[in-house]
Amino acid sequence: MDTDTTAEVVVVGGGIGGLANAYALATAGHRVRVLERAAEFAEVGAGLQMAPNATRILREWGLLDRVVEAGVTPQRLVFRDALTGEELTRLELGVDFLERYGAPYVVIHRSDLLTILVDACREAGVELVPGTGVDDVEAGPSGAVVHAGEARLDADVVLAADGLRSTLRGKFSDDEPISSGYVAYRGAFPVSELTLELDERSFEEVVVYLGPGCHLVQYPLRRGEIFNTVAVFESPAFAHGEADWGGPEELDAVFAGACEPVRRGLASLWRDRRWPMYDRLPIGTWVSGRLALTGDAAHPMLQYLAQGACQAIEDAHCLSTEVAKTAVDGTVDWDTALATYQELRTARTAQVQTTARVWGDIWHVDGIARLLRNALFTDRDVADHKYVDWLYGT
Amino acid sequence: MDTDTTAEVVVVGGGIGGLANAYALATAGHRVRVLERAAEFAEVGAGLQMAPNATRILREWGLLDRVVEAGVTPQRLVFRDALTGEELTRLELGVDFLERYGAPYVVIHRSDLLTILVDACREAGVELVPGTGVDDVEAGPSGAVVHAGEARLDADVVLAADGLRSTLRGKFSDDEPISSGYVAYRGAFPVSELTLELDERSFEEVVVYLGPGCHLVQYPLRRGEIFNTVAVFESPAFAHGEADWGGPEELDAVFAGACEPVRRGLASLWRDRRWPMYDRLPIGTWVSGRLALTGDAAHPMLQYLAQGACQAIEDAHCLSTEVAKTAVDGTVDWDTALATYQELRTARTAQVQTTARVWGDIWHVDGIARLLRNALFTDRDVADHKYVDWLYGT
Repeated sequence: MDTDTTAEVVVVGGGIGGLANAYALATAGHRVRVLERAAEFAEVGAGLQMAPNATRILREWGLLDRVVEAGVTPQRLVFRDALTGEELTRLELGVDFLERYGAPYVVIHRSDLLTILVDACREAGVELVPGTGVDDVEAGPSGAVVHAGEARLDADVVLAADGLRSTLRGKFSDDEPISSGYVAYRGAFPVSELTLELDERSFEEVVVYLGPGCHLVQYPLRRGEIFNTVAVFESPAFAHGEADWGGPEELDAVFAGACEPVRRGLASLWRDRRWPMYDRLPIGTWVSGRLALTGDAAHPMLQYLAQGACQAIEDAHCLSTEVAKTAVDGTVDWDTALATYQELRTARTAQVQTTARVWGDIWHVDGIARLLRNALFTDRDVADHKYVDWLYGT
Repeated sequence: MDTDTTAEVVVVGGGIGGLANAYALATAGHRVRVLERAAEFAEVGAGLQMAPNATRILREWGLLDRVVEAGVTPQRLVFRDALTGEELTRLELGVDFLERYGAPYVVIHRSDLLTILVDACREAGVELVPGTGVDDVEAGPSGAVVHAGEARLDADVVLAADGLRSTLRGKFSDDEPISSGYVAYRGAFPVSELTLELDERSFEEVVVYLGPGCHLVQYPLRRGEIFNTVAVFESPAFAHGEADWGGPEELDAVFAGACEPVRRGLASLWRDRRWPMYDRLPIGTWVSGRLALTGDAAHPMLQYLAQGACQAIEDAHCLSTEVAKTAVDGTVDWDTALATYQELRTARTAQVQTTARVWGDIWHVDGIARLLRNALFTDRDVADHKYVDWLYGT
């Protein structure tokens, strides 16, 4: 780093969570620097879902219009049985939903969201430093020292946004990522390149096919120019303790019994990469002196509630709000802000992490439990929002 | 047998199903003889539930008043979680139910029902012959010969009502009773002898506590003079392949995690006898020449829909109705009546047998399936009758 050796806030990790924190604090007048290990700020992956609990924040931050413009606002979320194809239930995402939660449901390419955040951070004066891996952070009661190779950087506060495999989380817990035994295949292709024939509805919906030990998700991205597919399954090889698991031959075998629209969807996946799925158990301490965890480093979760990015954005909103509350004549009481942040966010995200696991279990049941799940879903009043109010509501 | 060596109808087995058939045919003017292996006509067991599909028939037969007088008409059927005790759902059995299905839900002691049927058969001129085991039936195209010890009896038609372990079923299938691995403990005690403290509600309800691998049922009998308890559980010893399984020590162990009202209920069980639970798979042929299966001999089922006796009564009603339809100037076309009986009843009872198994699975789920079951039950509109219309309706 050939920049200043002091900063008010250093964010370790330039993913969605790190940039959201940087942006929220920078627009409140704080001097923020983001250190990213990779050579550039970029997201690996495909589609990402943003529920109103996140889009309300993006609106407050003045970023929602860009996100909506770069993404798609689906009309509904539809759950179908992956074996029969029959619709089980739906969540309408139209006018009533917008009114209820005060912001839209948006799906967006991860790289598009990252670009919006990078641009917004630049505009807000955030100093973005790629190619800089952090080796250690020494956190004290009134500041922290960041060690990055030969460089040494003093900060008032350091936010560890270094993701699922966070090294800084090691200062709070000796836990390791927990493999779910499930692996995701993704694909995000320009519509012109797809062999799949798509009807109009495919561009209006997020559809989730629920199967025994597997599911498939499809939705449009980038104003409908891209079609996104995710196939997730429980690896038999993993269950048998094999080291090499989740290969494409397992993908095909697990989905062989699925209905035709699901099997057809498998053709729209990248087969040369895959994402084994991990989470960790909730921990109650995220703050030590002037070092705080945020995003996946704090609460990595399974994706069944589609809340990974949303909760990172909630983290950033909570922290910046608490920081603003403590500021007297421009002086921030970081310790109070961080303590409140930890109290509020550990409780909320623990609930989301735990519920995401249960939700995944519900998606993947077989036998009598599948019959019960399907009856529960089919019987439910689609106007009933009790299963999402706690998550999407204010 | 020192009686006539001819009869129009011989019923083999003097349980509820056999007597119901005998009564229905005798009141229609047929000469019926019932052969029962045991020294007297008696039922082993405790309480028995009669849903409107059976009580409508009892009313038509002129027997409902006696059954109601000897039993209890509960106000509701309540399902609770056996671990927490919380109510999951209920089926109101009051005025609306009566109006919907045209007859009441009644619970009655098996021996009280049998006594009513024995009396009714006598009044209708049925010849009841206890102490007579049937060794074989030779069924031909125009009659059948019953062999009972040294005796030999010619009949126009023979109904095999010899229960779960029917020997005459062997003429139609080489199947054997299938153990569910579950065992029932029962108890029917005069209220004065109970240590259990019962509130008023206990005398108005059938309550079913659903637990993982176990359930407990409680209801009053005989105008509230008797309190009936049934505890059913999946035997771990059976699952481990042990020959001796389902003992009282397993009963206590399996129910150890249940809520206090359930554990308290175990004190009201007989511990010196138990009922391992069996069924068989549906078969499509019940009629061979002039021999026909009926009741448990035709369609033994698990008890989760409480339909064992009800379906036997439906059998009797169906056959006697078809017999009446074919009668021209007092001459019955038995072959046509039996063929229609087989067609109608095999389809109906196959559905009940199959659904009873599924219903049992639903009662006994654990883990995520229990969560789904409880949500499904709790969410359901108690005014919705779709799960029972097919069974209780006309």
